[in-house]
Amino acid sequence: MSNIFLEDLQPGMQFETARITVDQDAIIAFARQFDPQYFHTDPDRASASEFGGLIASGFHTLALSFRLFFDLNLWENAIIASPGLNDIKWLKPMRPDDTIYMKIDVTDVRRSSSKPDRGVVLMQHDTYNQRNEKILALECAHVLRLREPGRSR
Amino acid sequence: MSNIFLEDLQPGMQFETARITVDQDAIIAFARQFDPQYFHTDPDRASASEFGGLIASGFHTLALSFRLFFDLNLWENAIIASPGLNDIKWLKPMRPDDTIYMKIDVTDVRRSSSKPDRGVVLMQHDTYNQRNEKILALECAHVLRLREPGRSR
Repeated sequence: MSNIFLEDLQPGMQFETARITVDQDAIIAFARQFDPQYFHTDPDRASASEFGGLIASGFHTLALSFRLFFDLNLWENAIIASPGLNDIKWLKPMRPDDTIYMKIDVTDVRRSSSKPDRGVVLMQHDTYNQRNEKILALECAHVLRLREPGRSR
Repeated sequence: MSNIFLEDLQPGMQFETARITVDQDAIIAFARQFDPQYFHTDPDRASASEFGGLIASGFHTLALSFRLFFDLNLWENAIIASPGLNDIKWLKPMRPDDTIYMKIDVTDVRRSSSKPDRGVVLMQHDTYNQRNEKILALECAHVLRLREPGRSR
């Protein structure tokens, strides 16, 4: 599916992304730019710490998860904005050589009462690693256009 | 302040980061890696769109804001984890040559009832641009060690 509009979505629908493997260099490069805490940038010090090795910045886990989601290319003709996220939980760290993917569940679909050309879809986004452990969970709202604004639901 | 433990924080305390200016190349580089939607990667197409020009990925705004926060280096001896974020709102886009900074308000401080060596601080993190427009708002929980776990509050 790649040309979704608001009418095409219903609670209970699910999507799953491709998988991507992250290496230590990528984890360190992201962290040096955005989150230079030692447990994200220094493998030796991280190994000697309670973290038991290098862990990715949570913002890296989040951004890489959404890269997979954007690559689904669900709705390039419908997307207006993704105005917010809610209840983000980093449940386990992403580590070097982990392979992650995201599952997405449609939880609510609402037409706008003030703007008849659009509505909001709420989705639960969960990221898993290669052991199918959930490492990240969050809710995201996406504002989408209707394909046929004039039609009733 | 750079050696904060849980006891040092109280609701009402505020912090403010340094400022950083983001350029178009940085916005495009981040987006190509993590959020390659055209309004983040293609200045010409973005200019012709309702976005009125290139806008940064929200994940870039988020990560860069927290880079500023981490650079405050508030609590490297106390931080255990930052397990989650709540109620993230992207209020306005970050655009090329914007200069952003973050204000942080301590909203709640709680000792753990099960683990006497630590507690949780809740903070409201708000990012502003050079016109002092709030562009990003979120709540973040940080788990911090106590400096002196044996002492009552």
